[in-house]
Amino acid sequence: MGDDELVVIGGSASPVLTENICNILGVSVGEGGVHQFSDGNLFVKVGQNVRGRHVYLVQSTVFPANDHFMELLFWVDALKRASAQSVTVLIPYFSYAKGDKKDEPRVSIRARVCAQSLEAAGADRVVTLDLHAPQIQGFFGVPVDDLYAMPALTDTIAAENLENPVIVSPDAGFAKKAKQYATRLSAPLAIADKERIDHSENARVADLIGDVAGYNAVIVDDFTITMGTLAEVADTLIEKGARSVRAAVTHGVFTGKAMQRLDDSAIETLWVTDSVENQPVTFSPRVKTVGMAPLFAEAIRRIHERESLSVLFS
Amino acid sequence: MGDDELVVIGGSASPVLTENICNILGVSVGEGGVHQFSDGNLFVKVGQNVRGRHVYLVQSTVFPANDHFMELLFWVDALKRASAQSVTVLIPYFSYAKGDKKDEPRVSIRARVCAQSLEAAGADRVVTLDLHAPQIQGFFGVPVDDLYAMPALTDTIAAENLENPVIVSPDAGFAKKAKQYATRLSAPLAIADKERIDHSENARVADLIGDVAGYNAVIVDDFTITMGTLAEVADTLIEKGARSVRAAVTHGVFTGKAMQRLDDSAIETLWVTDSVENQPVTFSPRVKTVGMAPLFAEAIRRIHERESLSVLFS
Amino acid sequence: MGDDELVVIGGSASPVLTENICNILGVSVGEGGVHQFSDGNLFVKVGQNVRGRHVYLVQSTVFPANDHFMELLFWVDALKRASAQSVTVLIPYFSYAKGDKKDEPRVSIRARVCAQSLEAAGADRVVTLDLHAPQIQGFFGVPVDDLYAMPALTDTIAAENLENPVIVSPDAGFAKKAKQYATRLSAPLAIADKERIDHSENARVADLIGDVAGYNAVIVDDFTITMGTLAEVADTLIEKGARSVRAAVTHGVFTGKAMQRLDDSAIETLWVTDSVENQPVTFSPRVKTVGMAPLFAEAIRRIHERESLSVLFS
Amino acid sequence: MGDDELVVIGGSASPVLTENICNILGVSVGEGGVHQFSDGNLFVKVGQNVRGRHVYLVQSTVFPANDHFMELLFWVDALKRASAQSVTVLIPYFSYAKGDKKDEPRVSIRARVCAQSLEAAGADRVVTLDLHAPQIQGFFGVPVDDLYAMPALTDTIAAENLENPVIVSPDAGFAKKAKQYATRLSAPLAIADKERIDHSENARVADLIGDVAGYNAVIVDDFTITMGTLAEVADTLIEKGARSVRAAVTHGVFTGKAMQRLDDSAIETLWVTDSVENQPVTFSPRVKTVGMAPLFAEAIRRIHERESLSVLFS
Amino acid sequence: MGDDELVVIGGSASPVLTENICNILGVSVGEGGVHQFSDGNLFVKVGQNVRGRHVYLVQSTVFPANDHFMELLFWVDALKRASAQSVTVLIPYFSYAKGDKKDEPRVSIRARVCAQSLEAAGADRVVTLDLHAPQIQGFFGVPVDDLYAMPALTDTIAAENLENPVIVSPDAGFAKKAKQYATRLSAPLAIADKERIDHSENARVADLIGDVAGYNAVIVDDFTITMGTLAEVADTLIEKGARSVRAAVTHGVFTGKAMQRLDDSAIETLWVTDSVENQPVTFSPRVKTVGMAPLFAEAIRRIHERESLSVLFS
Amino acid sequence: MGDDELVVIGGSASPVLTENICNILGVSVGEGGVHQFSDGNLFVKVGQNVRGRHVYLVQSTVFPANDHFMELLFWVDALKRASAQSVTVLIPYFSYAKGDKKDEPRVSIRARVCAQSLEAAGADRVVTLDLHAPQIQGFFGVPVDDLYAMPALTDTIAAENLENPVIVSPDAGFAKKAKQYATRLSAPLAIADKERIDHSENARVADLIGDVAGYNAVIVDDFTITMGTLAEVADTLIEKGARSVRAAVTHGVFTGKAMQRLDDSAIETLWVTDSVENQPVTFSPRVKTVGMAPLFAEAIRRIHERESLSVLFS
Repeated sequence: MGDDELVVIGGSASPVLTENICNILGVSVGEGGVHQFSDGNLFVKVGQNVRGRHVYLVQSTVFPANDHFMELLFWVDALKRASAQSVTVLIPYFSYAKGDKKDEPRVSIRARVCAQSLEAAGADRVVTLDLHAPQIQGFFGVPVDDLYAMPALTDTIAAENLENPVIVSPDAGFAKKAKQYATRLSAPLAIADKERIDHSENARVADLIGDVAGYNAVIVDDFTITMGTLAEVADTLIEKGARSVRAAVTHGVFTGKAMQRLDDSAIETLWVTDSVENQPVTFSPRVKTVGMAPLFAEAIRRIHERESLSVLFS
Repeated sequence: MGDDELVVIGGSASPVLTENICNILGVSVGEGGVHQFSDGNLFVKVGQNVRGRHVYLVQSTVFPANDHFMELLFWVDALKRASAQSVTVLIPYFSYAKGDKKDEPRVSIRARVCAQSLEAAGADRVVTLDLHAPQIQGFFGVPVDDLYAMPALTDTIAAENLENPVIVSPDAGFAKKAKQYATRLSAPLAIADKERIDHSENARVADLIGDVAGYNAVIVDDFTITMGTLAEVADTLIEKGARSVRAAVTHGVFTGKAMQRLDDSAIETLWVTDSVENQPVTFSPRVKTVGMAPLFAEAIRRIHERESLSVLFS
Repeated sequence: MGDDELVVIGGSASPVLTENICNILGVSVGEGGVHQFSDGNLFVKVGQNVRGRHVYLVQSTVFPANDHFMELLFWVDALKRASAQSVTVLIPYFSYAKGDKKDEPRVSIRARVCAQSLEAAGADRVVTLDLHAPQIQGFFGVPVDDLYAMPALTDTIAAENLENPVIVSPDAGFAKKAKQYATRLSAPLAIADKERIDHSENARVADLIGDVAGYNAVIVDDFTITMGTLAEVADTLIEKGARSVRAAVTHGVFTGKAMQRLDDSAIETLWVTDSVENQPVTFSPRVKTVGMAPLFAEAIRRIHERESLSVLFS
Repeated sequence: MGDDELVVIGGSASPVLTENICNILGVSVGEGGVHQFSDGNLFVKVGQNVRGRHVYLVQSTVFPANDHFMELLFWVDALKRASAQSVTVLIPYFSYAKGDKKDEPRVSIRARVCAQSLEAAGADRVVTLDLHAPQIQGFFGVPVDDLYAMPALTDTIAAENLENPVIVSPDAGFAKKAKQYATRLSAPLAIADKERIDHSENARVADLIGDVAGYNAVIVDDFTITMGTLAEVADTLIEKGARSVRAAVTHGVFTGKAMQRLDDSAIETLWVTDSVENQPVTFSPRVKTVGMAPLFAEAIRRIHERESLSVLFS
Repeated sequence: MGDDELVVIGGSASPVLTENICNILGVSVGEGGVHQFSDGNLFVKVGQNVRGRHVYLVQSTVFPANDHFMELLFWVDALKRASAQSVTVLIPYFSYAKGDKKDEPRVSIRARVCAQSLEAAGADRVVTLDLHAPQIQGFFGVPVDDLYAMPALTDTIAAENLENPVIVSPDAGFAKKAKQYATRLSAPLAIADKERIDHSENARVADLIGDVAGYNAVIVDDFTITMGTLAEVADTLIEKGARSVRAAVTHGVFTGKAMQRLDDSAIETLWVTDSVENQPVTFSPRVKTVGMAPLFAEAIRRIHERESLSVLFS
Repeated sequence: MGDDELVVIGGSASPVLTENICNILGVSVGEGGVHQFSDGNLFVKVGQNVRGRHVYLVQSTVFPANDHFMELLFWVDALKRASAQSVTVLIPYFSYAKGDKKDEPRVSIRARVCAQSLEAAGADRVVTLDLHAPQIQGFFGVPVDDLYAMPALTDTIAAENLENPVIVSPDAGFAKKAKQYATRLSAPLAIADKERIDHSENARVADLIGDVAGYNAVIVDDFTITMGTLAEVADTLIEKGARSVRAAVTHGVFTGKAMQRLDDSAIETLWVTDSVENQPVTFSPRVKTVGMAPLFAEAIRRIHERESLSVLFS
């Protein structure tokens, strides 16, 4: 059978998503495991022969962020030194994507550091989901396919059949992407005028550009950690006369009081994908998950069978 | 005098800016020249000893784009092979910065291609001005300082003492940067809802988010080539009741009918920097130039004397 | 069919040669295109799925030299990021090959700059034709096959059945290669004693070593741009008593008054290959073209079917 | 003052050691800080101008291992992008040094992964202390100086004036290094015959080679995590008739019940260096710390003043 | 037959082993040859088409060490430039493995220099036999499989059915590996206390740890050059009451008076593998060779058929 | 004094030339040494502190070729790992320069292999003398200065005051360089029509282009090994009526019967430089040596004091 064998391995950050992907592809999850010593050192071991195989490795890099990133490096190295023909790294949630520029003096471009470490370890191709900035593809010399959750999320939103919907970007930085959601849903766009004050993850919603009075608002964003911004924007929307508020974000990172903030907020429903696992919170009933396994499975299948991925982006 | 000698060389794309920078620094323009053979091949020759010197090379990459980029590569290689201790490349207008992502299938990330060619040729440090996306810093392994024209441009706008000013972003993609202009000028923000339809550089302004009626509008952007978008946004602003329209863009690339479009438009004044030279048009009287030589000269001085550049970004 | 699919793509410098190659190979020209924006920026887009395919890209780098070289880099990057399994770059005329050494202080080795940019972009293998110096193969880390036009050109010359032929090298630098032509045609060799005075492409023929009186002379060279040298050597040959003069050069670059110079010269026939297209001149009837498509097609076929190329060099 | 300014920065793993080093060198600790976001992402910011400076960065990579290693990468990147002239990384305890070979199929050589990530980030030189294997120097392309704790530890042991001392290696793998301790202390050597059974950090002491009856034993090793091996070897030594047992290890990592095991064991005194901080245990009174700040300070001073380090190894 | 063709080529250091490997694999030795010019320059030429083939190149690097290493580099380059799909380098005896660390000031880590030269030349995978230190695998970025001679050697020793065997390590550095021999043979371990005094290859056996009186001793080591150490240890063993002495070492390098020293020593039998050829000595009858061709052939077969190598290490 | 200290170290191939260079520069030869073990392995040790120093390393790569090249790699690595600030490698005779192209199928470009190994080891700059092809500069990414022996050799020839001199190139390949000798000496040029038949270093002189009858001939070439070609050309020159024959070659490699061939030939005087030492022959009285120490010393001085080298090439 040779070159056509497909090996899908899941790191310890993404066991459920990996399982779901494998079920769709009709293959078993690849063998291997991770051990953490009492001093915190990780030890990765591939459990099956991968010599000459094309391996697909699934690992988000969060919960915990640094352990799971280092684990990813060790997986790639172990697979390459085990003579895998190629290693395609699928990172559903790439946490350091937020460190994508030097916007203050003497800081690191952390996403670039991660990218070059992955390439140095031997990654041949990378697949991501809604990178914080699409330019991050250019941090890598190897091909990167940045998949979009938008089609699945807009389908889900559309199925709600909201009357008079308006898409709301929580800040100017996400305006361009929010515009795409609006276009896809044939809805108008409004933009909250958030300001990030410092590194403490606190921000203040100053104002709102665009009309929302009488509309059913759907805030869209690429990720939420504390639910702080989303909750504040929701409050502002209600103040400005919105009839209802929902939200759709790709990556539901969720820490601390995120769930309490959600439940205390005006947001009726929060759609997130399953790009992140192991959150240290119990999901509120307001959270609805949209599965990404079909998207990742189709991407793997197409890469493996040398078909174009273009259709996944339309 | 040794290591402290400062050599500033200008490529053929930026002779005037280089001259201005050198005047401020009180040094002569470094010697060297470029010859183009009849078959189009370029030949670069450094005209003075640069062994062990820190060299600062100024070259925008436009008019013509590809010749001036290749010339830049040859300058860097000639300087490194002549044993310059370091080569700092100052690219006032980096034309391929627009090619910063793979937003459709099977295209090149051209800014990354340029970045890695520059690094392969031996560039040690890069200084740019208002990169199309700040993430492009991460395309380079070497340090990149992306200077801001905003302080100079907002000073210039502020000096107009406009009553009721509103800052207008010509599309959602520039909204984040426009917000910074608005904050700096204590003005509100409006966002035009442009849609780029194809690669023919034509776009359509669909709508406008935010209030502009009765305001004196200043459209801000990082560059304009044909004046098409700016003129259309200006029309829309007037339609929506703006009292007057001005515009401020960092890079005035200007081709074809750009000046005629400007003169036919509602834009009273267009501020641009002198990052681009050799435009194939004669400037309309509506164009006012804001010189960047002080900024670049200060950056070179600080780099050379090992001072922090932070103050240039505040 | 998988790995064995053959994709041949032509850049905008070599559409005719690419078409001819594809006709011989019995495949359609690969889909894709190039757009040049009004500011001179190029945009390359591969038009078909190339995932996992071996792609053969044909592009000379002249007319215009720098645009076509940059275009080549973008093609390679686009193909690699589209996950082509390998990209073989065929450069029938590599214009910067002339920049192959540092023969004066503080100049660039431009061919090396081009080579490392191509490798940085991801080229896996390079095929050239009569490189200005065979050492340029060593500028690349990837394999380079430098094909020879000599067999086709000597066959063409031999078909003339010239009585008493003498092969003439236009200068000492080409003497070694001219000797090979002479050996292949069982003819004696003469060497013109040209001196290049400066970078203005002007040279002076000082003298001639070897006997040409009563012979039918064939000047051979790797390229001609202005026809200046060839015309002068032809004059000298007639002066020295040659019965007739012909010339055979691999690359007919031809600019400015090249055709007028040819028609005014003693050269009866000038054989060139079709390695260069888009010359800004109309060919004189004295120019006869020797097609290289069979040679390139055979090289592609052999590379693709993993056969040896050795036979092409004998 | 220029090139001679010395900047010593401490990462969050080694604040005390850094402070001690700076005190000896008579400089302030370099400014900068680390913030950890609620999702676990780290953010590093250098707090002072380092342009053109030689920076010495002190960071052990443990407690927690992966966070502190990633932090180290971000420090290096931040410093290089801030145009530090060189970054010398001092890693008192390099936790992944234990992952130095592929001793079972399909595992990663983790120390090499770390080394190449550090080099990719831009580290110019590395200083370590008693690397698990000296060959790890060869995992780096940049210079590595592996300092020895042995002189300080043997001085400390010698000061005890033990009668009839015997040096004991806890296993065959450390025998070579233990021999050096023995030679330095003019004591005989014994070797415990430990066997590591699995990755669970459990081992069994099978036997002892060499005489210990009536001797005062000092077990030596490069690190201890759980005290398991040391305690078992100590038991065996007592069983075999040793008069007393002490131990000296370079890196006191200490997790879980390490202190209880120490207190329950025959080991009267355990000497460790201060290469590790932040241990999640309270030290037993049996632990005696030997400070390494003088050694690291002297190494920095010598590197900075371009003196030889040789004397530190004698 | 395509990708599955197997090409095994032998360099001039290992013709016999290559022949034996090919016989087991049932293939002819790949064509090619080496010429040495009178000035010492080597010239390597591959004699058959290897385009797209997986090539396995066998070459020890000794007798003479530097010529055979340079030859190896040229083979790899010739194969890569001839478009071999992959080059797997099998180095039965890698002489510079002994230069694996910087254990005195200002020396080279020669094994790393060799490793990076091999990688720069294009080696895709390396197979070795009993590397002097397993960490050397980490000097390479490409996969390295370090095969073990131990199974074959212990089988051979076991077949002697020695009564009361004891395994002896000639120094502390080899103790860990000797322990594995002892375990495999269910024998106790003793360790000689050798001290290397200088670079003159002379050492002194100071003492012996462990009991040997009445035992039949087998000294084990990874290589011997002069037989000096082995002979001295053998003397000490006899002194300490050993009944008989044998030795088993992987690499029989053998120079100068090695054979005379063997014959004059207490060593009855010396087992070595055939990893080294061309020794400048005639073997004593006491030398018994254990062939490694079956091991290397099986490794090549498994690599080529994409099977796991794990079984070879058990 | 710091950065300005000059360290010149000589490898074992060039002790005399190094001594001469140091005498001119007024510095002692840098400390260090090489040991060759009985198995042929080399061991290099730098004998003095070089931390932060600019080191100049002199080593030809012949007699023996491969040992001296490997030694060079180890010197560079040892110096870099000892934290030398820069290592400039001076290779008076770079033996593998002859392997500069792939002029037959499936051979290595050996000069490129050597170049990339040197760069991988850490060489910062290279200085050579009359490289076999100037293009080899482009095999290196680091700066290469290829010094010319021609000024010194033509001065020497001119001092003979030959009547009617003619410069003779021994083959077409050297014609271009010979033309430069002729121009410098205001003499005509003749070209011998040598043909190399195989790799056995034998060639046949077929014919001679140009007039030599009645002239005093001086054959020029870049190197001679066996004197075979020079002697044959000399015979042909006498046959064709030359009055006398002399020869000037940069690199006198000399093996086997070179001296006997010289003495048996028509060559009255053979000028060579001292780029090569340790020839396995005793020089004939006909050999006159032209010292290159002044040239190398001046190059080192200028590099070290950051002056231009241009004057050395005029």
